Amino acid sequence: MKQVVTFGEIMMRLSPPLNYRLPQASTLEVTYGGGDANVGAALVHLGMPAAHVGCFPDNAVGQAAAQAFRAHGVDMQHCVFRGERLGLYFLEVGASLRGSRIVYDRYNSAFANLQPEWFNWDEILENAHWLHWTGITPAISAAAAQATRDAIRAARRLGITVSADVNYRRNLWQYGQQAQDVMPELVAGCDVVVCTEGDADDLFGIKPEVGAENSFVSMSEQLIAQFPQIKQVIATRRKTRSASHERIRGMAYVDGTYHQTSYFDINPVVDRIGGGDSFISGYIYGQQHYATTDEALTFATAASALKHTIHGDVNLVTAAEVEHIMAGNLTGRLLR
Amino acid sequence: MKQVVTFGEIMMRLSPPLNYRLPQASTLEVTYGGGDANVGAALVHLGMPAAHVGCFPDNAVGQAAAQAFRAHGVDMQHCVFRGERLGLYFLEVGASLRGSRIVYDRYNSAFANLQPEWFNWDEILENAHWLHWTGITPAISAAAAQATRDAIRAARRLGITVSADVNYRRNLWQYGQQAQDVMPELVAGCDVVVCTEGDADDLFGIKPEVGAENSFVSMSEQLIAQFPQIKQVIATRRKTRSASHERIRGMAYVDGTYHQTSYFDINPVVDRIGGGDSFISGYIYGQQHYATTDEALTFATAASALKHTIHGDVNLVTAAEVEHIMAGNLTGRLLR
Amino acid sequence: MKQVVTFGEIMMRLSPPLNYRLPQASTLEVTYGGGDANVGAALVHLGMPAAHVGCFPDNAVGQAAAQAFRAHGVDMQHCVFRGERLGLYFLEVGASLRGSRIVYDRYNSAFANLQPEWFNWDEILENAHWLHWTGITPAISAAAAQATRDAIRAARRLGITVSADVNYRRNLWQYGQQAQDVMPELVAGCDVVVCTEGDADDLFGIKPEVGAENSFVSMSEQLIAQFPQIKQVIATRRKTRSASHERIRGMAYVDGTYHQTSYFDINPVVDRIGGGDSFISGYIYGQQHYATTDEALTFATAASALKHTIHGDVNLVTAAEVEHIMAGNLTGRLLR
Amino acid sequence: MKQVVTFGEIMMRLSPPLNYRLPQASTLEVTYGGGDANVGAALVHLGMPAAHVGCFPDNAVGQAAAQAFRAHGVDMQHCVFRGERLGLYFLEVGASLRGSRIVYDRYNSAFANLQPEWFNWDEILENAHWLHWTGITPAISAAAAQATRDAIRAARRLGITVSADVNYRRNLWQYGQQAQDVMPELVAGCDVVVCTEGDADDLFGIKPEVGAENSFVSMSEQLIAQFPQIKQVIATRRKTRSASHERIRGMAYVDGTYHQTSYFDINPVVDRIGGGDSFISGYIYGQQHYATTDEALTFATAASALKHTIHGDVNLVTAAEVEHIMAGNLTGRLLR
Amino acid sequence: MKQVVTFGEIMMRLSPPLNYRLPQASTLEVTYGGGDANVGAALVHLGMPAAHVGCFPDNAVGQAAAQAFRAHGVDMQHCVFRGERLGLYFLEVGASLRGSRIVYDRYNSAFANLQPEWFNWDEILENAHWLHWTGITPAISAAAAQATRDAIRAARRLGITVSADVNYRRNLWQYGQQAQDVMPELVAGCDVVVCTEGDADDLFGIKPEVGAENSFVSMSEQLIAQFPQIKQVIATRRKTRSASHERIRGMAYVDGTYHQTSYFDINPVVDRIGGGDSFISGYIYGQQHYATTDEALTFATAASALKHTIHGDVNLVTAAEVEHIMAGNLTGRLLR
Amino acid sequence: MKQVVTFGEIMMRLSPPLNYRLPQASTLEVTYGGGDANVGAALVHLGMPAAHVGCFPDNAVGQAAAQAFRAHGVDMQHCVFRGERLGLYFLEVGASLRGSRIVYDRYNSAFANLQPEWFNWDEILENAHWLHWTGITPAISAAAAQATRDAIRAARRLGITVSADVNYRRNLWQYGQQAQDVMPELVAGCDVVVCTEGDADDLFGIKPEVGAENSFVSMSEQLIAQFPQIKQVIATRRKTRSASHERIRGMAYVDGTYHQTSYFDINPVVDRIGGGDSFISGYIYGQQHYATTDEALTFATAASALKHTIHGDVNLVTAAEVEHIMAGNLTGRLLR
Repeated sequence: MKQVVTFGEIMMRLSPPLNYRLPQASTLEVTYGGGDANVGAALVHLGMPAAHVGCFPDNAVGQAAAQAFRAHGVDMQHCVFRGERLGLYFLEVGASLRGSRIVYDRYNSAFANLQPEWFNWDEILENAHWLHWTGITPAISAAAAQATRDAIRAARRLGITVSADVNYRRNLWQYGQQAQDVMPELVAGCDVVVCTEGDADDLFGIKPEVGAENSFVSMSEQLIAQFPQIKQVIATRRKTRSASHERIRGMAYVDGTYHQTSYFDINPVVDRIGGGDSFISGYIYGQQHYATTDEALTFATAASALKHTIHGDVNLVTAAEVEHIMAGNLTGRLLR
Repeated sequence: MKQVVTFGEIMMRLSPPLNYRLPQASTLEVTYGGGDANVGAALVHLGMPAAHVGCFPDNAVGQAAAQAFRAHGVDMQHCVFRGERLGLYFLEVGASLRGSRIVYDRYNSAFANLQPEWFNWDEILENAHWLHWTGITPAISAAAAQATRDAIRAARRLGITVSADVNYRRNLWQYGQQAQDVMPELVAGCDVVVCTEGDADDLFGIKPEVGAENSFVSMSEQLIAQFPQIKQVIATRRKTRSASHERIRGMAYVDGTYHQTSYFDINPVVDRIGGGDSFISGYIYGQQHYATTDEALTFATAASALKHTIHGDVNLVTAAEVEHIMAGNLTGRLLR
Repeated sequence: MKQVVTFGEIMMRLSPPLNYRLPQASTLEVTYGGGDANVGAALVHLGMPAAHVGCFPDNAVGQAAAQAFRAHGVDMQHCVFRGERLGLYFLEVGASLRGSRIVYDRYNSAFANLQPEWFNWDEILENAHWLHWTGITPAISAAAAQATRDAIRAARRLGITVSADVNYRRNLWQYGQQAQDVMPELVAGCDVVVCTEGDADDLFGIKPEVGAENSFVSMSEQLIAQFPQIKQVIATRRKTRSASHERIRGMAYVDGTYHQTSYFDINPVVDRIGGGDSFISGYIYGQQHYATTDEALTFATAASALKHTIHGDVNLVTAAEVEHIMAGNLTGRLLR
Repeated sequence: MKQVVTFGEIMMRLSPPLNYRLPQASTLEVTYGGGDANVGAALVHLGMPAAHVGCFPDNAVGQAAAQAFRAHGVDMQHCVFRGERLGLYFLEVGASLRGSRIVYDRYNSAFANLQPEWFNWDEILENAHWLHWTGITPAISAAAAQATRDAIRAARRLGITVSADVNYRRNLWQYGQQAQDVMPELVAGCDVVVCTEGDADDLFGIKPEVGAENSFVSMSEQLIAQFPQIKQVIATRRKTRSASHERIRGMAYVDGTYHQTSYFDINPVVDRIGGGDSFISGYIYGQQHYATTDEALTFATAASALKHTIHGDVNLVTAAEVEHIMAGNLTGRLLR
Repeated sequence: MKQVVTFGEIMMRLSPPLNYRLPQASTLEVTYGGGDANVGAALVHLGMPAAHVGCFPDNAVGQAAAQAFRAHGVDMQHCVFRGERLGLYFLEVGASLRGSRIVYDRYNSAFANLQPEWFNWDEILENAHWLHWTGITPAISAAAAQATRDAIRAARRLGITVSADVNYRRNLWQYGQQAQDVMPELVAGCDVVVCTEGDADDLFGIKPEVGAENSFVSMSEQLIAQFPQIKQVIATRRKTRSASHERIRGMAYVDGTYHQTSYFDINPVVDRIGGGDSFISGYIYGQQHYATTDEALTFATAASALKHTIHGDVNLVTAAEVEHIMAGNLTGRLLR
Repeated sequence: MKQVVTFGEIMMRLSPPLNYRLPQASTLEVTYGGGDANVGAALVHLGMPAAHVGCFPDNAVGQAAAQAFRAHGVDMQHCVFRGERLGLYFLEVGASLRGSRIVYDRYNSAFANLQPEWFNWDEILENAHWLHWTGITPAISAAAAQATRDAIRAARRLGITVSADVNYRRNLWQYGQQAQDVMPELVAGCDVVVCTEGDADDLFGIKPEVGAENSFVSMSEQLIAQFPQIKQVIATRRKTRSASHERIRGMAYVDGTYHQTSYFDINPVVDRIGGGDSFISGYIYGQQHYATTDEALTFATAASALKHTIHGDVNLVTAAEVEHIMAGNLTGRLLR
C-alpha cells in the first residue's frame, strides 16, 4: 500500500501539568509533534500508511522524538540523525478566558541546519501517492525551504498529489527571506491547500472581493486563478467561545463548488494543538475513502473535532471513531 | 442495626489518567467496583450498614479488591477467596463529543467460577433487612445465576425486601442461557426494581402502549402486572448533552402513582461510572429515612447527580451532603 | 520603589489531586497562601514591590511556607520565625453542583501566638506607601488584633494608604472577642475597603435602605458616613452557576459615584481560592497606574477573573496579561 | 476468633516523595499510622483478628484515618469520632548519612482531648484475648494516661494478656506529669514488654549491673524483679550502618532464659517507621503459633526485617512471607 | 540488512510504583514485554534490525502493546490482531531481603489461542538471518508449540541460525502436554541455547557427571551429545546477594571450550526482569560483531548487567554503552 | 550583613523520573541550577546572605529560573532579563555500573549573549565581602569571560576575597579562545581556588613533581608559585565505587600546610550534581565560622557528602545539619 509522505520539523513539547503556569511546575509533560508529522501519524491511526522525513540530533533527545513517531507506526527510515539540538517549545495550557501560551525555543535546531542534499526525494517518494507539507517548514531556514522545493518538484515529476497547509506565522520567518517571496513558488506546485482568508491576504495579497457573498469562496477563486495547479481549497471556520470551548465547521471549495459542514461543538477542549493537522489528515483520508467532497469534508471536520478531546499533538482516533461522530453521535455516550 | 446485603462481582478498573487514551498511558489508575457492591459501599457512606457477598482470587489482586471495599466500611466477611483471576476492565475517559470507552477483560474470573453452594444464604441474610442485586450477576455464569436465585429465595423466605437493577447488557450473556429466560424468575422475587422502557422491552417484551401519555408509567403498569411482587419501579431519565455534560431526573411508579423530580444539571461530569448504582442506593436510603416517595426519589436523584462529580465507582457522599443538594443548593458554593 | 505591605497568616493548603475526596488521596498537593500575603504576591507579579509581615514556626514547615512567598519575590525580611506549628487547611475541590469544601486546622498556630511587640511598624513601614490587611487577621487572636491595630496606627501616622478586605467569617472568631467589637476601630483607619452588603450588615449593622435603587451604593454611603476616613468601597458581585462556572463583576463607590464593570464569565473555574485577594491587588495596582476608577476597577475585575483560571492561592499573572483581558480578548486565543 | 485490641493515637503522616526535603515538595504522600494501631493492622495481615480503639475528629480527615485502618481489616467499631483535629507529622526521608527527620504537629488532637469515660473497656475487651499499648499513649495527655490505666485494669480483671512497648520519648511528655511517675503503674500490669536498656534506665532507673555479661539480661532481671507480672522482656538490637542500611537482631528474656536471633541485614531500607511495631506484632503472632520462644522471636525479627522493605507504617506481609524469611530465604529471589 | 526474528507472547506488566505492595497502589505502572520480543527490541537498540511475530487482541490494549514494540523500532508487520485479551501480570518490586513477586493473569490470551496456520514462516523469515524463541512459548498452548515447531522447521529449511532460551517454568505447562515431551524436538533444531544445569536436568534429565570439575561443561557436553545441532551452550551464573544486589557472570561452552567472564556487580538493581533476555540479545549481537567467543560473551554479560539498571523489560542501551562497560568502566562515572 | 556574590549561568535541568532513560519519560522533572548560583543558594541555607548575578531570557522560562533561586533566598536584584533562551540540559540518572548521562542544549543562551557593560560591578559588589566564580563561566562566550574579568578586577579593587572553582571542561570552550589563554589571568586574581591535579595540568601545564610524596601538595605549591595571590588550594578526592556509591575526602593546602579529612561514605547517592559546589560553599562558610582550616575543611566535606543525599543541584542543608555530621553522626539516625 502506497504511503503519504510528510516533511518537516518535529519538536519536543514541554507542558506543565493541568493548567499550571511554568514557574509552578516541578515536572513537565513531554510529547513530540510537528505540523506535518502529526498528519502522517494521524493517517496511520486512521489506517493509511505514512512516512515522515525529518532531521534529528543524534542523541537521546533526537532518538526519543523519532521513537515517539515510530510508536505511531510512521515509517521513519528516511529521517536523518545529524546536528546538535532538537527544537522545543513550552506550552502553558490555558482555561476559560486565559488562552494557552507557547514559548518557542526552536532556533538552530538539527532540522533548521539540515542540508537539502541529504534527501533523495525520488527514492523517498518511490512508494508514495501523496506528499504533504506545511508553511512552517520553509519558514525555518533557507535550506529547509530548498528541501521543500525539491520535494514538491520530485512529487510533481512523479505524478504524486501534493497538499499544503499554508499556515502563515509571521514571527517564524527569521532567516532573511520573506514568506511572500518563498511561498508562491511552493504553493504553485500543490493540488490541495488549507488556506484561510487571512493566510491568503498575508501571503499572496489576495483579499475577498468587496461585497462577496462568501469570503472563502471569493478568496479560493482568486487563489486557484493565481495557482492553477490547485484543485481544492479547504479550511476550518472557528467560533471560539473560550480557551475551553470551541466550535468548528469545515469549508471546501472544489471544482467551483462551495461545501461546508455544520458546526461541531467541543466543550471542554482537552488539547487544541494539532487541530488543523487532524483536519487535513482527515481530508486526505476522506478523499481516498468517500465518493463525495461533502463526506470527505465532514470526515475531516469530525476528525478535527475529536482531536480537540485528545491529549498531545497527534489525533489518536480510528476511522471507525470518526465515522461514529459523522453518523451524528455527538453526545459522547459510553461505549462498552 | 440490620444490613443491606449485595451480591455480585467486583472488578479492577484500570484507567489512563485524565482523558488519555490507553496507548498514551505509562500509568493506569486503579480502582475497584461492581454494580452491586457500589450500592453497599454508598449506603455505608450514607450511614446504613451493608455487607457484600462476592468471590475473589486468593492472591494480592483479590485481596486488594476486597480491601478497597473494607475501607468503605462494607462487611466483607461472607466473601470467598478462591479462583484464579479478578475480572478487570480498561476505561478510557472521554470528553465532550468523545464518549468514554470500556474494554472488558472479565471472563473466567473467580466470580464467574464460583459454586453456588459456597454461599449459605440463610446465614448471610440472618442480619439483613434488604437484598440488592443487578442484572449483571446472572449474566456472568450459570453458577452466578443460580446463586442469585438462591439468594432471592432465601430473602423471600426470611421476609427481606429485595431490589434489583435489571441493567440489561446484551454482550455479557455468553454462557449459553439468555437473559430473557433467566431474568423473569429472578425479577419475580423483587419488591423494587430499577428498569427503563428499553430494559423492559429487551428482557420481557414489554412495550409502552401505543399512545400512552407516559411511557414509563405504561411500562411500569405492565411490569407490575406481570410480576405482582414488584411494588415500586424506578429509573432515571437522562438528557445527555455530551460526555462532559449530563442532565438527569428521577422517575418512580409506586402504588399506582407516578413521581418525577426536576432535572439536575451536571457540568462537567467527573466520572459517570456508578451513576445508576448511586441512584438505587439513594433510593434505598430514602425509603428508610423519608415519609414520602417524592422525598426518597429526590434524595436518590440528588445522590446520583453528586456521584457524577466523584471519582471512582462509589458514591463517596454523606446523607447530609445529599440533603444539601435536595435543599436546592445547586451552585456549588464553597463550604468552609 | 516603595512597597505595599501586607500583614497576616500564611497557611499550608493540602488538596487531594483533581476532584478527589480526602480519603481517596494517597498524595496531597501542597501550596501556601493567606488572604493578605496573596495580595502582596500578586502585586509583585503585576510589577509592584511588596513585603509581607507574618509569623512562622521555626522548622522545615515554616521555612517552606516562607520560601514559597520568597519565590514570588515578596520581601519577607520582617517575618518572625517563632512558635510551634503552621496553620493548615484541607481543600477538597468540588465540581459542578458539588461545592469545594475546606476543613481548617489552624488553631494554636505560630501566627495566632505572635506577640504584638515583635513587630516594629515604624521600621516595617519605613519604605511603604500602602498597608493592606484582611478581617481574618484580627479574628485569629487578641494579639493578632492588637498587631493589626498597631500597624494601622503606624500607617496613619506615616501617611500611608490603608486598605482592608473586611471579609467576615463568623466561625473564626473564637478567642473571646467579637468582630462587631473589634472591627469598627480597625476599619475606621482605612482609606479603601472591600465590603459587601452582607459584611456590612454582619459587622456594622448597616443595612441598605429599604427601597434603595442600588443596595451596594446605599450600604457604601452609610459605611462612609460611619467611617469618614474611607474614600472607596469596592466589591465583586458573583452570579455563580456552579462550582465550575462563575460570573463576576466589579463594583466601586468612589467620591459619591457608583461604578461597575460588565460580567466576566469563567467556565471552567480552575481554582476559586484567592479570587477576592486578586481583586483587591488588581485594584491597588489599578489605582496607581490608571487615571480613572473605571479603568482601575476593570483591571481589578479582569485580574480576579484570570485568577479563577490559575492553580493555587496567588494570582500568577502579569499586568500585560490582565490588560489583554481588559482589551476585550475574552475567548482565550492561543498566544505564540 | 478472639481479637487483639490496641489503644492509641493514629496520626496522618505527610512525606515529600522519595528523598525530597519539605520545601521541595509540591505533593506530599499521605499515610496513616500509630504505634499501637500498626500492631493491630499487621496482625490482621498475618491472619489474627484485631480491633483498635482510638479517637478521631468527626470530619473528612478523621474519616480518612479510620478508613485506612478499616482497609487493613481492623475492627474500628469502638473508635470515637469527636474533637477538632487529627495529629499529624511531616517526615523527610533521609538516605545514607542523612537521617530521616520528623516534624510533629500533634498537640490538641482529638485523641489528646479524649475523655476516659467514652471507653467502656469491659465491653471493648469482651471479645479480646490480648491488649497491647505503647508508652506513647500515656505521654499524650492525662486523660489518655487514665484511659490506658482503665484498659489495663479491665484486661487484668478479664484475664487478658497485656503487652506494652514502653517506647520512652522524652519530648512527648508535656502535660505536666512525668513518664517516671506514670509508667510504673501501667507497666506493672503487663505480661510482655518491649524494653531496651536505655528505656529501662530512663523510665525506671534500672541500669545493667556493672560487669554484667549481658546487659539486656541484667536489665530484664531487674525489670521483672520490680514488676513481677512481667513474664517476657523483648527488644531488638540495631547495628545501624546508615539511614539506608540497617541490621537487626531480636532478643528475649523469658522464664530466666536469654534468646537471640542472628542479625538480619536490610539494605536498602525502604521505610523504617513502624519497625518496632512490626516486631511486637510478630512476637504476638509467634507466641500463638509456635511452640518455642526461639521460633516466636525469629518470626518477630524476620517480620520486623521485612517491614523495613515496606512503604508506610504498617507491615503488609503475610505469615507465609515471614516464614519464607525464617526458613533462610534471605536473598530476595523473584517469586512467580 | 537482514533481521533477527523472534516469536512469542507480549504481555502487559502492571507494577505498583517504587516498592509498594499491590493493595497500596492507586496507580500501576504499565509496560509491555515478553521473553522473546525483549530480545528483538534490545537488538534494535544495539543496532541490529529485528522483527517480532506475535498475536494481540484487536482492541486498544493489544494496540498499545504492539505500539510499545513499534516504538523500539521492531518490525511488527507479521503480528496478528485477533482474539479477546492480552495476557498480563502484576509485579510487586521487592527490596533487600524481600523478593519481587509476580501474579500472572495470562490464560486464554490472544496468543494462547492463536492458530498456527496464521503464520507463513517462509514469508516471515524471508528477510531473516536468525530466529530466536524461548521455552515459554511452547508452554502456553498446543497451538503455540506447533507454531514454534513450524518456525524452527522453516528456519532450518532456509538455513537460518536458531537460538533458544530453554527457560523451564513448571507452572506454565497447563494445556495437557509436558515440557519433557515437547521441548526435545524443538531444541533439536537449535544452534545456540541458553540452558542452565537446572534446566537441563528438569527438561532432559541431564545431570552433570558426578565429580565433574565444571558442572556447566559436563551438562553442555551431554546436551550437545543429545542434540548435535547445538554448537553453543551459554548461561549466566548468579550470586544473588539480595533483591537489590546482584552479581552475574557469563558462561559459554563452544566448540569444546569453556569460557567465562568475571563477575559484574549490580547494586542497586533497578529492574531484574529481562536480565536473561538481554544476555541472549547481547550474545547474538556479539556473535556478529566480535571475532572471539570471549568478546561476545563479555559483551552479552555486560549488556545483561546494564539491563539490571534499566526500568522495564527491554534493555535500552546502545552497543557503545555496552562497550564502555566491557572496557572496564564499572564505576558509573558521570558522562557529559 | 555582607553578601557573597556569585556570577554565572543558571540552566534548566530536565530529568526523567527515577532511573528512566529519556525516551521512556512521559514527564521530566524540572529543576534549575548553575555551578556558581548553587554556591550562593547553599550559603543562604547555611545562614549567610548571598546574591547571584546572571542573565535570563525575559519570558516565563527565564522567570521560572530566577524564581527558583529567589525561593532559596538569594538576592537576584542584579540579574538581567534579556535574550532569547535559557540554556538547558537533559540528565539521565544512572545507577550502579551505569553512569548518569547529560545531554547539553546550552548554546546561544541569554547568558552566552550577555554584554559585559550590563553589569556595574562596583555597584553590585558594594555590599559584598566575597566573590565566587567557576571556570564554566568564561568558557561560555568571550563576553562572559570579559564580564568575569571585570568582576574580578572590581573585587580586587574593593578588597573583596575572590574564590574560583577552576572546573575545566574541554568541550565547553567553543567560542574561539582557549581556556589555557583565558584562565590564567582570571585565576591570578583569586585568593582561594578549587583545583585538582588534573585541572592544573590541563589549564596551566602544572604537573606534580616526579616522585612527589603528595601530588596535591606538589601541584598546589606550583600553582601558588605561579599565582601568588592564591592563598588556599582545596579539592575533594573521590573513590567512586559506582554511580550509586561514592566516597569523598577533602584536601586543602593552606599557608604551606596540607590538610585532609577522612573519607565520607555515601551509599546510595541520591544526586551527585552540585557536589563540588556544595564543597566550596561549605568551605566559604567554614572559613568565616571556624578558627582552623581543619574545621573549615571538614565542614566543607561534610556539606558535600550531605549534598549527595539531596535531590537537585542545590545543597538544602542548614549549618546545624552539617555540624551534626561533622560531630561524627554518620549512621543516619532518625531525628524526631
